[in-house]
Amino acid sequence: MDIAPPPNAAHTEQRLARVRMVLVGTQHPGNIGAAARAMWTMGLRDLRLVAPRHLPNAQSAAMASGAAHILETVRVHPAIVDAVADCTRVYATTARRRDLSVPFATPRAFAESFAGQRFAGPIAVLFGPERIGLSNQELGHCQEAIEIPANPVYSSLNLAASVQVLAYELRQALLGDHPIAADFHAPAPQDAMEHFYGHLERTLVRTRFLDPEQPGRLMLKLRRLFARAAPDDNELNILRGILTSVEQIGRH
Amino acid sequence: MDIAPPPNAAHTEQRLARVRMVLVGTQHPGNIGAAARAMWTMGLRDLRLVAPRHLPNAQSAAMASGAAHILETVRVHPAIVDAVADCTRVYATTARRRDLSVPFATPRAFAESFAGQRFAGPIAVLFGPERIGLSNQELGHCQEAIEIPANPVYSSLNLAASVQVLAYELRQALLGDHPIAADFHAPAPQDAMEHFYGHLERTLVRTRFLDPEQPGRLMLKLRRLFARAAPDDNELNILRGILTSVEQIGRH
Repeated sequence: MDIAPPPNAAHTEQRLARVRMVLVGTQHPGNIGAAARAMWTMGLRDLRLVAPRHLPNAQSAAMASGAAHILETVRVHPAIVDAVADCTRVYATTARRRDLSVPFATPRAFAESFAGQRFAGPIAVLFGPERIGLSNQELGHCQEAIEIPANPVYSSLNLAASVQVLAYELRQALLGDHPIAADFHAPAPQDAMEHFYGHLERTLVRTRFLDPEQPGRLMLKLRRLFARAAPDDNELNILRGILTSVEQIGRH
Repeated sequence: MDIAPPPNAAHTEQRLARVRMVLVGTQHPGNIGAAARAMWTMGLRDLRLVAPRHLPNAQSAAMASGAAHILETVRVHPAIVDAVADCTRVYATTARRRDLSVPFATPRAFAESFAGQRFAGPIAVLFGPERIGLSNQELGHCQEAIEIPANPVYSSLNLAASVQVLAYELRQALLGDHPIAADFHAPAPQDAMEHFYGHLERTLVRTRFLDPEQPGRLMLKLRRLFARAAPDDNELNILRGILTSVEQIGRH
């Protein structure tokens, strides 16, 4: 006996299609297939691979089972920045909390926040390589981290199992009743943020605040700060205008 | 930085140890290992096999990863009735609703019901063979069925992925009022922010980005942007250092 779809079923599927799962540096092709299956069971279909060790193969297809079509349309990118260029928000998944100034959310809080957004997406959720997880450098691309509350003695979920939990929470959140948030803030896409970071870095070299020979973690810290602010297009224009005005000092 | 365990952490682990996952007629040994891993990441350890096609083998151990000890203590039973003999309640998982007189629950409702019981367990959750699921005969051993809300077009979760979702929901329900703290970020106090805004304004006048005769709403917009970022003391020092470096252009 089939269940009658709720009235907003089409809307739910459209929203889920705006969530991108990005597997970074995946080691085992089977996990790519299992992740595709986990996604499609919850209605997600936008899978991206960043520098995988192997491209999807027969083992991936076997693990994908009835979701093999997700693998056929998968896009492979050389770097995270390419995979998330058009995303308005980028989340990292991490097994353990680190001493970083990135806010943490549970999968449920993340999913409910997505469900409550009016003009949401595309958003990206990053999953690091098996065992290692995302590096601090890679975390620098993310505005927020998602930590699955797990057994403190053994918190290492299988990659596809993590994908399953997040995809599951997203679907449940969209099925629920959620008031639309009053927030109309529309963050600029990631490629615009990358242009800003490049401009900022050049300007700081010019003011001698940043020594290109010894850059340290300065740009990483600034990325986190501005990622938290999530500027919209207008604010980004102001910031870039300020940088241009700094570059023109002494040229007037 | 580690998270302090909530006061009832030991109680949570004890409750989770009272949940038994029963895999019935499992076909692939790898799935048994993956299920063990899914359980242990959420603190469950009581795994039973009913008439598996193969006993756990090297492939199971590889998939179990850091939960291989669960496989070492796994008990194998000839029939469901033996596996659940001491259980106070038996649940079936099913991918699709059937025309049966068994009440259905979502994973969340199931987990919250378990968390709310005072003298709970052991309880058993049954998972049928891959692709086929539990037969009507096997469903007859259960008081309640659990259906994971999934994509109506493709609702077939991998066996271990189903175990992961149920184990995850159980742990979240028992954590209850003890969600992971959102954030260790400590924003700088307002007076420090005011000093920063003052410094920023003077610098922008110097770079001629801000015309003091016609300031418009520029500072208001920048205040909103930086208030959203909520810099901490260290980040504020970096921002003020950048402003100082701009002021010193041409003085080197």
